[in-house]
Amino acid sequence: MTKFLDGIDKPEDIRGFSLAELTKLAQELRDYVIKVVTQSGGHLASSLGVVELTLALHRVFDMPRDVVTWDVGHQTYIHKILTGRRRQLPTIRQAEGISGFQSRTESEYDNFGAGHASTSISAALGFARARDMLGGDNHVIAVVGDGAMTGGLAFEGLNNAGRVNTDILVILNDNEMSISRNVGALSTYFTEVSSNPLFNRFRNQIWDIAGKLPVGARTVRDIGHKLEESLKTLIQPGVMFDELGFKYYGPVNGHSLTDLESILKRLKQIQGPKLLHIKTVKGRGLKQAESDPVSYHGVSGKPRQPAPSSGDKMPSYNTVFTHTLIDLAKHDPRIVAITAAMAEGTGLVEFAQELPERFFDVGIAEGHAVTFAAGLAAAGMKPVVAIYSTFLQRAYDHIIHDVDLQQLPVVFALDRAGLVGQDGVTHQGSFDLAYLSSVPGMTVAAPRDGNELRNLLFTALNEELQGPFAIRYPKDSVLRLSEEIRYQPLEIGSWEEVLPGEEVILLAVGPLVEEAVHAAGLLRDQGVTAAVINCRFVKPLDRRMLAGIKRHALVVTLEEGNILNGFGTMVCDCLYRELKFQGSSLKLGIDDEHVKHATRSEQQNSTGLDAAGIAAVVMQKQREAV
Amino acid sequence: MTKFLDGIDKPEDIRGFSLAELTKLAQELRDYVIKVVTQSGGHLASSLGVVELTLALHRVFDMPRDVVTWDVGHQTYIHKILTGRRRQLPTIRQAEGISGFQSRTESEYDNFGAGHASTSISAALGFARARDMLGGDNHVIAVVGDGAMTGGLAFEGLNNAGRVNTDILVILNDNEMSISRNVGALSTYFTEVSSNPLFNRFRNQIWDIAGKLPVGARTVRDIGHKLEESLKTLIQPGVMFDELGFKYYGPVNGHSLTDLESILKRLKQIQGPKLLHIKTVKGRGLKQAESDPVSYHGVSGKPRQPAPSSGDKMPSYNTVFTHTLIDLAKHDPRIVAITAAMAEGTGLVEFAQELPERFFDVGIAEGHAVTFAAGLAAAGMKPVVAIYSTFLQRAYDHIIHDVDLQQLPVVFALDRAGLVGQDGVTHQGSFDLAYLSSVPGMTVAAPRDGNELRNLLFTALNEELQGPFAIRYPKDSVLRLSEEIRYQPLEIGSWEEVLPGEEVILLAVGPLVEEAVHAAGLLRDQGVTAAVINCRFVKPLDRRMLAGIKRHALVVTLEEGNILNGFGTMVCDCLYRELKFQGSSLKLGIDDEHVKHATRSEQQNSTGLDAAGIAAVVMQKQREAV
Repeated sequence: MTKFLDGIDKPEDIRGFSLAELTKLAQELRDYVIKVVTQSGGHLASSLGVVELTLALHRVFDMPRDVVTWDVGHQTYIHKILTGRRRQLPTIRQAEGISGFQSRTESEYDNFGAGHASTSISAALGFARARDMLGGDNHVIAVVGDGAMTGGLAFEGLNNAGRVNTDILVILNDNEMSISRNVGALSTYFTEVSSNPLFNRFRNQIWDIAGKLPVGARTVRDIGHKLEESLKTLIQPGVMFDELGFKYYGPVNGHSLTDLESILKRLKQIQGPKLLHIKTVKGRGLKQAESDPVSYHGVSGKPRQPAPSSGDKMPSYNTVFTHTLIDLAKHDPRIVAITAAMAEGTGLVEFAQELPERFFDVGIAEGHAVTFAAGLAAAGMKPVVAIYSTFLQRAYDHIIHDVDLQQLPVVFALDRAGLVGQDGVTHQGSFDLAYLSSVPGMTVAAPRDGNELRNLLFTALNEELQGPFAIRYPKDSVLRLSEEIRYQPLEIGSWEEVLPGEEVILLAVGPLVEEAVHAAGLLRDQGVTAAVINCRFVKPLDRRMLAGIKRHALVVTLEEGNILNGFGTMVCDCLYRELKFQGSSLKLGIDDEHVKHATRSEQQNSTGLDAAGIAAVVMQKQREAV
Repeated sequence: MTKFLDGIDKPEDIRGFSLAELTKLAQELRDYVIKVVTQSGGHLASSLGVVELTLALHRVFDMPRDVVTWDVGHQTYIHKILTGRRRQLPTIRQAEGISGFQSRTESEYDNFGAGHASTSISAALGFARARDMLGGDNHVIAVVGDGAMTGGLAFEGLNNAGRVNTDILVILNDNEMSISRNVGALSTYFTEVSSNPLFNRFRNQIWDIAGKLPVGARTVRDIGHKLEESLKTLIQPGVMFDELGFKYYGPVNGHSLTDLESILKRLKQIQGPKLLHIKTVKGRGLKQAESDPVSYHGVSGKPRQPAPSSGDKMPSYNTVFTHTLIDLAKHDPRIVAITAAMAEGTGLVEFAQELPERFFDVGIAEGHAVTFAAGLAAAGMKPVVAIYSTFLQRAYDHIIHDVDLQQLPVVFALDRAGLVGQDGVTHQGSFDLAYLSSVPGMTVAAPRDGNELRNLLFTALNEELQGPFAIRYPKDSVLRLSEEIRYQPLEIGSWEEVLPGEEVILLAVGPLVEEAVHAAGLLRDQGVTAAVINCRFVKPLDRRMLAGIKRHALVVTLEEGNILNGFGTMVCDCLYRELKFQGSSLKLGIDDEHVKHATRSEQQNSTGLDAAGIAAVVMQKQREAV
């Protein structure tokens, strides 16, 4: 049976559709996205929630002339299908395939790229003000979820947009979720539309006063109702946006095509900053996803497989992290855990279940997470802040200004450090070694396996420790994990010789130690002996061990991070400048670039950060030297 | 005549004071602060605005057991006087003297340090939650100005604090100013207390309905007034905070000691998150400061001297920046300027006067400034974002994620780069070379003088340029500036030989080129010839010129920045690892530390970054080599 979907390659193709046809198309779109994503993996629930919104936007507005900034961008699978990428959808998030987010290089219909949350309003305001200055008349729309609204950047955007007399439409896609359940007062604000205490308090007052009126019961009730209705539109729930300068519209059922199109057409005619509040169901159309949108936020090939594990039998780094943290926290009442809307992603869900009173999910608000942790630490607690490497970039100043300057003992657990796999360019954890190492008092560490993660956490949460301590690990399974837990404090800045070797020395960070060991095996097969060092501390470096590197003709540094200003740079600087090292060196890592989406192992391969790649460049260097 | 002030060394000393005595003390405190600051320089207007608040807080609460986080911290001169630092006040912001901000190492009464804005609520929440967990019963208070409320971090803090049932008091010190006049919808919200359109709209409806009531005029009026009063307390102006979960109190006259003490005593008894809105006058008590609080925000020895110039006859870097930008913008309608509440500090006031429609002050909201600029650039404009080096740390992720990843042509003008003088540790611009260079597509430049700043801006705003371009310059006067403006495009990554020399080569960044030239003179006097290179591009490096460095026995890199992962590290890495340089090297810059407050020249001296210091270490190195 021919589907409507098969004929759709551009937004114009759906302009003439009847409501019945659109309704059918919506179903086909859902079916197609579910089919593709359950096969290939990707973000699922968010796109299912905005099928009708995306259709309505593309019918009412004229894109790409009219600009839409989609917050985060993982909800744009439908948008991709409607804008010429229908056939490519099965390649999504795969090497050479289309991105899982918006991307300006991928399509002219992607006006502004994203991946991190809360940027859409600020970016849309940029488009709107540029239009005003250039004399254009196109529409500018930001689509932002209620979760992203907890980010300070979204508030900064609203506060700035609300003051200027420019035409901008913010669509608040309210599904009462960010990725985890929303947190924060704002979330309560959105959800408690009709149970607003203010509203109730005032309503009671009205009835109280009305009851004292010396008039017939009927009139009293009429007045009361009239006032109540006025009050509703005033206090419910747009008043916050009204106060920020936006005209508020809604809430509207975000799954009603007719309601959406009708209000969007009206809003097209209304000038100034406008906010349209729509209510949607995340995962709409897929029963399992509707009832468990957290698990179905992203799926990896087949549903029900939670995010972190790459499918091996070994637990993921974040599982080891959580279990260790629970164990340590049970023995130290001052240990608390903080995350920013990533309780699942960082593995802290279990911590939250075991020690709920010591768990803080602050919502999408990385800056607050860090400054809040600084406050906790200043008051004597031992906070552990677990945030993805890429998202912690949002808190760079807070790390320097609130934690480091005051030498407060805050532990940073950076999940998704290094190559991040299919989320691609926006999510690479490739800058943390550089940006954390440039912070004066910071200790920066990376475990080679699960056991070392345990020991590093144990060390970081040690009694005597002062100042911040960062531990970074990848989105991957651990390589080794003992049944029995025996904590061993590690000397700060100490490295470990894993393999001896005479000709070459491989200085490896984190799980690259294992690749280095394999590479050493490959090199041995070719007659080259290579030592392997586990450089578990990136800052401070083990200067004693570096000073011992004299006899090796070739030093190779290995890091899953930008080689510009990373571990290798610091090592080479120390070796050559301070220690007068005379041999050659190779700095392997991520070239000064943004690595595209692919699987983690494909990325390891393409960046040369697997055993074969390492052995190959070392052999080439050896041949050159001869 | 004996003053009350002379006997005050701790908060307890003012507990027994009568209102009359307190009033007199308040005057003495103002006189003392005015006297000290007009002599020694420092922040003035903010402290004058909180004299009564500070007195009331110290009388009602028991510090340091009760915790106060002062946002930014430059309003705490009175607090310093009342907590044992009266005699040290004249040393404020001077080398070895007390800090101009809060500092945990300076006094136990400084519970949490600051310098950057908007951190106080998040930090206070940390203290409050720690107290809850540790079973304490102390009070926790955040004092935050209305300006800092435009920062997303403040919103994140409120949103998180409002949801938890913890005792916390946020005092909103509303002086209708940040440093410049406040911007954003929120500012309008604070100031338009009684002209709230919502309020007026609803009041009209009430009267409208009341007018139709079939009852005597008197009753109608009574009902109307009662409703109006209820409405006032509901809608005015606390509703926004109510919605965020705070109980709102105020506004209260922040210069009435009795009002303040009375409400603070009441609030001590009230549980949960509370917000007290006080109205103050910035600069209160000093006529000139009251009428011109922007100029009197900070003074440098004597009043009326605007911030940037260090007193020389040459204009400051930010003046040259602004004049150049105005000139270029007049010839290119796509150039726009953006700042974050620092129109005066960055010199952009003049731009705003000349080209108001192309000037954007987004308030204290650095993240928004950058993402907004990305939106503008994506829509075809050429935005120039002028933010202090230290504050741009807040937008690190926005630079990577919104600008760099999309290779958008945004120009960053980093004022106050390098050593920042008396603002001290919280404001040092010593990380930008590291954090900007680690961003893949970024060009990082630093002009040696005013003429080169012109040419770098001209180059950055050139037609063909793609991707972000950062220009960093210090809080200082330029060293040279031609009367006649002749723009010269500079090849990206090109350096300039300033002085030839055989033995030593000094690779200098920005104004350190001049110090290097002087150092070369000193070295020549001692028989050593030194070449000087103007390394105007920190990224990319001039590899051609680096490759030519073969004959020099000693390479010296000079940068006003953290030497860990900065310019020198990149140079040495390239020289030794890639180019097989065999000589020695010295990396001069800021050691991996936070440099304390002192004058800029004292800091240059103490870090060894002046001509004499440079010459001295070079000679020492030469002697060692012999």
